[in-house]
Amino acid sequence: MKDQKKMWSVFSLKHVLVVSLALNVGLIFRVLYEGEKNLSGFCLENKEAFMAEADAHVSKNTSLVTSTAATPTEVRDGVIDLGHGDPTMYERFWKRTGDKTTVVISGWQSISYFSDVGNICWFLEPEFANVVVRLHRLVGNAVTEDRHVVVGTGSSQLFLAVLYALSPPNASEPMDVVSAAPFYSSYPLMTDFLKSGLYKWAGDAHKYGEDRPYIELVTSPNNPDGLIRQAVVNRSEGILVHDLAYYWPQYAPISSPADQDIMLFTVSKTTGHAGSRIGWALVKDEDIAKKMTKFIELNTIGVSKDSQLRAAKILQAVADSYDNVGCNSEESETFFDYGYNVMKKRWKQLREAVNKSSLFSLPDFPLGTCTFSGRTFKSQPAFAWLKCEGEIEDCENFLQSHKVVSRGGKHFGDSTKYVRICTLSRDETFNLFIERLSTIKTRNSYTN
Amino acid sequence: MKDQKKMWSVFSLKHVLVVSLALNVGLIFRVLYEGEKNLSGFCLENKEAFMAEADAHVSKNTSLVTSTAATPTEVRDGVIDLGHGDPTMYERFWKRTGDKTTVVISGWQSISYFSDVGNICWFLEPEFANVVVRLHRLVGNAVTEDRHVVVGTGSSQLFLAVLYALSPPNASEPMDVVSAAPFYSSYPLMTDFLKSGLYKWAGDAHKYGEDRPYIELVTSPNNPDGLIRQAVVNRSEGILVHDLAYYWPQYAPISSPADQDIMLFTVSKTTGHAGSRIGWALVKDEDIAKKMTKFIELNTIGVSKDSQLRAAKILQAVADSYDNVGCNSEESETFFDYGYNVMKKRWKQLREAVNKSSLFSLPDFPLGTCTFSGRTFKSQPAFAWLKCEGEIEDCENFLQSHKVVSRGGKHFGDSTKYVRICTLSRDETFNLFIERLSTIKTRNSYTN
Repeated sequence: MKDQKKMWSVFSLKHVLVVSLALNVGLIFRVLYEGEKNLSGFCLENKEAFMAEADAHVSKNTSLVTSTAATPTEVRDGVIDLGHGDPTMYERFWKRTGDKTTVVISGWQSISYFSDVGNICWFLEPEFANVVVRLHRLVGNAVTEDRHVVVGTGSSQLFLAVLYALSPPNASEPMDVVSAAPFYSSYPLMTDFLKSGLYKWAGDAHKYGEDRPYIELVTSPNNPDGLIRQAVVNRSEGILVHDLAYYWPQYAPISSPADQDIMLFTVSKTTGHAGSRIGWALVKDEDIAKKMTKFIELNTIGVSKDSQLRAAKILQAVADSYDNVGCNSEESETFFDYGYNVMKKRWKQLREAVNKSSLFSLPDFPLGTCTFSGRTFKSQPAFAWLKCEGEIEDCENFLQSHKVVSRGGKHFGDSTKYVRICTLSRDETFNLFIERLSTIKTRNSYTN
Repeated sequence: MKDQKKMWSVFSLKHVLVVSLALNVGLIFRVLYEGEKNLSGFCLENKEAFMAEADAHVSKNTSLVTSTAATPTEVRDGVIDLGHGDPTMYERFWKRTGDKTTVVISGWQSISYFSDVGNICWFLEPEFANVVVRLHRLVGNAVTEDRHVVVGTGSSQLFLAVLYALSPPNASEPMDVVSAAPFYSSYPLMTDFLKSGLYKWAGDAHKYGEDRPYIELVTSPNNPDGLIRQAVVNRSEGILVHDLAYYWPQYAPISSPADQDIMLFTVSKTTGHAGSRIGWALVKDEDIAKKMTKFIELNTIGVSKDSQLRAAKILQAVADSYDNVGCNSEESETFFDYGYNVMKKRWKQLREAVNKSSLFSLPDFPLGTCTFSGRTFKSQPAFAWLKCEGEIEDCENFLQSHKVVSRGGKHFGDSTKYVRICTLSRDETFNLFIERLSTIKTRNSYTN
């Protein structure tokens, strides 16, 4: 097995290289003869060719057919795992775009630790910073004027960088960190795992009564429940950090550009590229941006340039596709339309399944008009905050007994009657989950 | 933890799928292309084509111009900055290898957070793990049998992961962390910047007298002075961490495979790809590997897959070039020969310049025979630990007055009469430095 794997890696590395040469030649000619404009659009003239290639993959390796089609990797031995936020839903879209989003990095590139020595964030790739600003302007979900862009190894690292940047270095007591329940389950763990003397988790913001400086995390749309959030403590000693990972038009109507002092975003939830570990912060205060940069320097001496360059290429392709009027036809869905349509369909399926029984309920969301798409719709979040009604006290165990893995409410500072279920899995997984949910008719099946 | 294991196993087929798709893409194109044999060697037949492509890239990307053009970023306004360990020396070699080390990643690849759910380190790309083992076996610098590979965002993240993994979670006192002076200047900063209750910097191992558990960092060859190191405290309550970033045949003779419980390495100093932020740990104890993985999960939710795939491709090319006898001619230097020859030349230049005046001295190193190259030579480290002799008390200021930026001895827990100077800069920078050093004849120039 080990040798097999080794053999695969040797071959795949050699041969993908050959593909790259073909792609490069193609790209260069298209730049010369068709111009940049069409290059990054999502016209699907190559779709058939690409799908044929994809089919070739599958037919050449029958042993893997099952893991791409009938039983996706999120499902094994009949157990459907929706306990984490892995955004595999987006794979299908990116396969359609073919070579337009293929990144090519030569062996001699990105050797140095430094990306932009003139920038406060000296390890920030300018291409990435530029497209982040361009995309926010296009979508209208965040103000970028008078903001410093700080790149991080995912928004997790940026969250920790913010805690470091906002906590006074010589305080007698660690700074309190709060967020309104239900809050993202990783916040307490990430805040406390090193027992820092600079900051400590202080729990549910609704219950926070201390009269001292604090950091309040405002996640909007919220993970896990998808609601639009405002700060709840509202005291003068408070500093707000806005986690806007899900404030994108496939998940919620964009009402206006967020204009907060510290805003966190991540490629994982924007385009689905979680494996690249790239997030960014928009920071108003220069000293805070400097301290966040210092944290990342002491934590990982910067952020992968390869992933910044790849994320830049992906985000550029997203932005370019909206410049590309000729492409915006039915046969070539733009990225946010794809995301919106998939999420719309999934939430319709989900609510129908939930309404079939009296066992479950879901949050309702207000109608809103999206300034980006012009559509009026209700939020269709990346997570379903499902409640078990009636006598079922532990919803996670209940679903587990039906071979559905979710994350229980207690992890989010809330009741065990709730679970968080990821809605960003592959189609096969999600459809299987909907079927499974629909079959759960009575509490009796709990004991089955 | 239980849920995590389940989650991992649920995903176990996914990675195999990704690898096999890459393989299939390769197989399709293999039919079309010949010359496989030379593909991974360092023959230069494609150099011209590659340089044309590189030039095209540079002209389209101004952010790359500064790092590839005649005046390197290490020299600004006549000031030569050798204060960091930026390994730009290697750019020249990687340009020679042309497209053989070009990595190509399609838009749909590496979407998921997960790489190898069956592995303790669930975000470790198998291609990377495999080539790490292959390279250590080839070079003979570390034992890989019965070791777990843990990948990190550079070895900095792995250093912090080790501190977390080795410190008891509920101790009344933080664990002491020591290293023999002169020690790597970042160790104290990285250990203490979050004021962790788990561990704290306890200074020079030579002066450590406490009778309680401690962690001793053994860096060998040592940063900054290049000496081969052993543990110095040697008490039963001690746990050793070996930082072997510089234990490669271009810097020092490989005497035998290191066989320690915890060994840290980094791509930055192996091949020079510092911008990719990829390091690895070889860890004997399974629980320590698990806790290190947990740290990285809570710190950055894994490590960039893009950079792991790129690092795998680069390391694969290094290893392949030694299989490729036809390529090992004068016109195609293998990677470690290139590194060895450049370092040999630079240390010769450096010692000649130093010997011209009575102002400076350098450490001497014992002769050793390298089991990898068969050569008998003295260490030629990535840093010069330069001492100002006589009346010059602050060597950093003295060199600063001659427009050379270095890092002063006090940062390394040693005297201000010493400075650390990076020897891995680009040729232009290093040659400029040697010229400048040669012009410093007398102490009087201090006041110039």
